[in-house]
Amino acid sequence: MPTIVVPIATGFEEIEAVSIIDVVRRSGIEVIVAHVEAEATVRGANGIHIVCDRPLEGISSNDIDMIVLPGGWGGTDVLAVNETVQRLLKEMDAQKKYISAICAAPYALNTAGVLRDNFTCYPSVEEKISGKNYLGDTQQVVYDAHVMTSRGPGTAICFGLHIVKRLLGDESFHTLKEGILADYCE
Amino acid sequence: MPTIVVPIATGFEEIEAVSIIDVVRRSGIEVIVAHVEAEATVRGANGIHIVCDRPLEGISSNDIDMIVLPGGWGGTDVLAVNETVQRLLKEMDAQKKYISAICAAPYALNTAGVLRDNFTCYPSVEEKISGKNYLGDTQQVVYDAHVMTSRGPGTAICFGLHIVKRLLGDESFHTLKEGILADYCE
Repeated sequence: MPTIVVPIATGFEEIEAVSIIDVVRRSGIEVIVAHVEAEATVRGANGIHIVCDRPLEGISSNDIDMIVLPGGWGGTDVLAVNETVQRLLKEMDAQKKYISAICAAPYALNTAGVLRDNFTCYPSVEEKISGKNYLGDTQQVVYDAHVMTSRGPGTAICFGLHIVKRLLGDESFHTLKEGILADYCE
Repeated sequence: MPTIVVPIATGFEEIEAVSIIDVVRRSGIEVIVAHVEAEATVRGANGIHIVCDRPLEGISSNDIDMIVLPGGWGGTDVLAVNETVQRLLKEMDAQKKYISAICAAPYALNTAGVLRDNFTCYPSVEEKISGKNYLGDTQQVVYDAHVMTSRGPGTAICFGLHIVKRLLGDESFHTLKEGILADYCE
C-alpha cells in the first residue's frame, strides 16, 4: 500500500485535515499525520486539538508516495516558511512524486516553487500567487502533472477521494465515494 | 450566543465530529467537545486522536441549547449505553430542547426513547430501529419537532450548517455555506 504524509501546523483547517486523513485511511493507504512544530498536539483554526503520529522531521521523500497540505491561514503561514516542509516539497517535485494542497495551502507550494501552471485554491488566495492559471470553481480538484489542488472545507472529502483515485485507481474512488455518501464529488 | 455539546467516545467518526464542531464554531456558537469516557484524548474510527475540552459528566441540560451526537459504530455503541449520555438525552427531550444525531448515532437516540417518528441515518442502521419512518436519502437532514438527524460523513458539513440554521437562523446558514464552499448543501 502507498504511504502519504499530512503535515500539521498550528492553525490548520480541521475539516480539511481530518477529511483527507479519514477518507484516505478508509482506502487502506497509510497516512502519517506529522507535526511540523515541536509539540505533537496541535491546535486547529477552530480550536480543535489533534494528536499527531510523529514529527515531520526525519521523514524522507523516499518513504512516501505523496505529501498533502491541509489549508487554514495560520497553518499555511507555517508551511510556507518551515524549512523541513519546503525542502520535502522540493525533493518530491524533483522526483515527480505527488504533491497536493487545498484551500490556502497552494500558497505554500508556490513559495517552494513547485506549484504548476493550472491550479485552484480558496477564493482570494490566488491574489497572492502570480503568473499562474487560477481555475476557480470550474473543478473541485485540479490536476496538473504530479501536482493536485483543491478549494476549501466543502471540497475536502472530494479531494481525499481524488488522492485515493490517484494512488489506487477509479474503482477505489467510486467504492469509497458511495460508502461516504459523497454523491456530489465529481 | 447559544451553547451546544458534542459527546465524543472511542470509535467516533472523525469527519462527522470535526465537521460539526468546525462549522458550528465558525458561526460563533459555543461548542463544548466533551469526552464520555475517562480520558480526554479520544481515538476515532480511523485512528485520529482528538483532545476534548472537558468531561461530559457535570454538564447539565440547563447549560446547553443542543446536544449533537456524531456517528461511527464504536462511538455509537458507547453513546447508546452510557448513563450520562442517555440521561442527558432524556432531560433535553423532556424540556423540548434540540437533540441531533448523524450516521449510526440516531440508534443511540432510539435507545434513550427520544428519536421521533421521521428520521434518517446511515444506510442499514435503520434496520436496528423499528416502528419509525426512515426517510433514507430523500433529505440530507431530517427535522421532526426538536430532533434532527442526518446520514453520514458526506452530509456532515450540511448537518453542521443546519445546526447553525436552527439556532441562529437562515442568514447565518447561507453566509457560512458560502464561506465553506458547500454549495451542495440543501
